[in-house]
Amino acid sequence: MKTILWAAVTANGTYMHGGQSYHWPKEVFEDFDRCAAQAGNCIIGRKTHEEYAGSGGDFGRIDVVVVSRTPRAIPGVKHVTSPREALLHLEERGHVTALVGGGDSLLNAFLAEDLADEVIVNLTPELGGIGNHMALAGTDHKPMNLLGVREIGGQILRVHYALRR
Amino acid sequence: MKTILWAAVTANGTYMHGGQSYHWPKEVFEDFDRCAAQAGNCIIGRKTHEEYAGSGGDFGRIDVVVVSRTPRAIPGVKHVTSPREALLHLEERGHVTALVGGGDSLLNAFLAEDLADEVIVNLTPELGGIGNHMALAGTDHKPMNLLGVREIGGQILRVHYALRR
Repeated sequence: MKTILWAAVTANGTYMHGGQSYHWPKEVFEDFDRCAAQAGNCIIGRKTHEEYAGSGGDFGRIDVVVVSRTPRAIPGVKHVTSPREALLHLEERGHVTALVGGGDSLLNAFLAEDLADEVIVNLTPELGGIGNHMALAGTDHKPMNLLGVREIGGQILRVHYALRR
Repeated sequence: MKTILWAAVTANGTYMHGGQSYHWPKEVFEDFDRCAAQAGNCIIGRKTHEEYAGSGGDFGRIDVVVVSRTPRAIPGVKHVTSPREALLHLEERGHVTALVGGGDSLLNAFLAEDLADEVIVNLTPELGGIGNHMALAGTDHKPMNLLGVREIGGQILRVHYALRR
């Protein structure tokens, strides 16, 4: 199973949370939707699911898996309690690629368990505060290969990496 | 005075410190040297000066300004105690552009005082840990204009922004 972590961050790496004080540019949602449609699925955290569904987002016909420690029945959504369980579920459903869409805690849980193969980062043209980050646990660093970079509109750079194995 | 903040960070925005456990790729130093030569100066923190000089770095004929709270005589280097004092010194020397080369504390001091006009970020193809970050104080965010992006070798993306005024 190829596991892709998808994130949108400010140019200096701050992981913003959508809400009343911050709105992601539409190009970011469009890229997420494209990636999820291509994988046929997405794995997200409970808060991200609430934010996305709350902002009128529509997952369409893809398999949606919500990871959270506290079980919660959401119609049309598979609930699991760990990254590994999420991947197992999608494997059983016949998927070959899994798209992990955030938030930062969930992305970092996949990184901490060394479950990521690729990373897609959308850099918005902004400077953010200290805030949250997609990051490895501890002070380690891991090399990646740059697979590509392109501007997706709105001065947003979409950068695609593969973790080196 | 146009003030440019220059930084090199991992793809996820971690500001690494050079030392025994981490070495910046040579392309990063080359880009810094190019930018400093173009500005004819650089403003850096005390630790960054020690790291750079300690790694055999040579500032050549540019004006080097070290910002640190504790005065310290370094031959060939102007010592100041604040970002504003650094800019004033370079203005008096006839410079029209100032290049601020880090570390993260110094970059963030310039951001906190709203003294930055442009930001150059070199993204290395790596994932870093939580660590340090170039960031605004607090939870604010500021829009920027993307001036350009190019690969400078070693799969490093050099991204150039101007803060919107």
